[in-house]
Amino acid sequence: MKALRFIRGQLGLHDISIPDNPAEALVRVTRSGICNTDLEIVRGYAGFEGTIGHEFVGVVERADDRPEIVGKRVVGEINAGCGECEKCLGGDARHCPIRTVLGIVGRDGAHAEFLQLPSRNLIEVPNEVSDEQAVFAEPLAAAYGIGELVDIGLETKVAVIGDGKLGLLCAMTLVLRSDDVTLVGKHSSKIAIAEKSGATGVLLDDITPEMSRQFDVVVEASGSESGFATALDLVRPRGKIVLKSTFYGTPTWAASRVVVDEITIVGSRCGRFAPALELLRNGHVKVEDLIDREFPLTDGIAAFEWAAEKGTLKVLLSPNG
Amino acid sequence: MKALRFIRGQLGLHDISIPDNPAEALVRVTRSGICNTDLEIVRGYAGFEGTIGHEFVGVVERADDRPEIVGKRVVGEINAGCGECEKCLGGDARHCPIRTVLGIVGRDGAHAEFLQLPSRNLIEVPNEVSDEQAVFAEPLAAAYGIGELVDIGLETKVAVIGDGKLGLLCAMTLVLRSDDVTLVGKHSSKIAIAEKSGATGVLLDDITPEMSRQFDVVVEASGSESGFATALDLVRPRGKIVLKSTFYGTPTWAASRVVVDEITIVGSRCGRFAPALELLRNGHVKVEDLIDREFPLTDGIAAFEWAAEKGTLKVLLSPNG
Repeated sequence: MKALRFIRGQLGLHDISIPDNPAEALVRVTRSGICNTDLEIVRGYAGFEGTIGHEFVGVVERADDRPEIVGKRVVGEINAGCGECEKCLGGDARHCPIRTVLGIVGRDGAHAEFLQLPSRNLIEVPNEVSDEQAVFAEPLAAAYGIGELVDIGLETKVAVIGDGKLGLLCAMTLVLRSDDVTLVGKHSSKIAIAEKSGATGVLLDDITPEMSRQFDVVVEASGSESGFATALDLVRPRGKIVLKSTFYGTPTWAASRVVVDEITIVGSRCGRFAPALELLRNGHVKVEDLIDREFPLTDGIAAFEWAAEKGTLKVLLSPNG
Repeated sequence: MKALRFIRGQLGLHDISIPDNPAEALVRVTRSGICNTDLEIVRGYAGFEGTIGHEFVGVVERADDRPEIVGKRVVGEINAGCGECEKCLGGDARHCPIRTVLGIVGRDGAHAEFLQLPSRNLIEVPNEVSDEQAVFAEPLAAAYGIGELVDIGLETKVAVIGDGKLGLLCAMTLVLRSDDVTLVGKHSSKIAIAEKSGATGVLLDDITPEMSRQFDVVVEASGSESGFATALDLVRPRGKIVLKSTFYGTPTWAASRVVVDEITIVGSRCGRFAPALELLRNGHVKVEDLIDREFPLTDGIAAFEWAAEKGTLKVLLSPNG
């Protein structure tokens, strides 16, 4: 099968065997999405080698321990726990210390014709949700999950830093919880997508001193060191900063501001898929606005180059395209 | 009166007038304590100029709007709010945006014969508490306040990084909440003080790989950049790091670890005085073990030099000594 693999520092389209571990389900991928984490892996983040990609929708070809899902359209929880440790037995494989993560840690990923995951990781996609929508389940879950970590009510004053895919998804889901969401970005055209969903858009250069220290919750989704500095500027004393984006490097920060103003910083990675699929089904989040372009998997290298261009939104790959 | 002042980058003993703002209480200082923040101010942190010092006990000489406390022994909340903003009206002057802070921001401090504070900031000291104990009320409140920001129960696995004054106070108060408190420090003699209170002491060099990612809550009280790195190493996935110490500088940090392991970082500055005074009254915390040496205020420069030596515990100043 065709697979987009990162091996010895090189991204390439390889021809490899279809995976055949009978202990896991086999999924034929119909769409996969290129995430910033993919781009950072290609830059050397996390030291991953293998088939990259973790956002996908597909059809189950085989699932020996869960035959009822064969033939169903599914998305999948990307963390695969050992199944035996305290975390796994407690139902949270996302923090299993020896977990593998689809296309990120020790497990081949989704930019391929087929992938494998434990069958318990797979969630059926409702009929009303198209493949192009379902492929957003993973990042949408991550964005919507913010509301499970931090209390956000109708009057909570929220800012999101970053108008990339993740920042926009954060803004588009936060408006479902708060009437006062501001997206800070660099591109009018992308800010407009958040505005369409009900957020207030502000260009980074238009931040005024009056906005300093005004926000109850600031979500850092730009993945840049300056984004964190902006977040620290905007958050009010005793407010919260939610760190959504992983980034390569070790930013400096004004730790004293965090202590003196008793700010809380909350790291946040993954969310739950079920509520994300429900948001897609009921149409409360319009992810279609975030699709930039679709490539066949065989043009994967070009797709990655395109996705790495500044300002590009979601790029999808289609193994059959 | 004599006052230890930091002016144009120089610490000096000055002779100045007794403060005479009739809108505030006047306190004759009987003991003041040298805090690491004082040492950092002398290194240029916060750009403060004036009389330094914020840990004190004294006797009220004048309080026009609260005459019943004249003649009483008091300690004092160091943040003085404007009294009119949303924060102040809500009872939290500690986060008033235009607050002054005793000996730290825009207000002369405690290393002097007299100081002034709004009378509402003063709290009477119980008879059973000596001056040498009462002068610890402010840092003890800050240490004990950790339990108000983060849930800590008997089985919560807690580590404190730093065996300085603040780290020891944190360990000595955390053992009142948890049966599993570890103090990580560099000096056996200081670690022994925490062990006496029921904590487990570990030398920094003796940290083993098995301790990595094991602690539910890690308190960073070393005030060093490497202390934060140690905290990040020890905290478990989804655990919490409490930042207690302000420090000069902008440390780098592995932001990706915070996101991937969904760690929460909580900045924490001040605590409430009333519970701290109660801990001193009922003898649950033995602060006497933390006193290194006492100097007369007139030897204040020498006292600061002594306090700045590595490994020194609490240095007290006595205006009458």
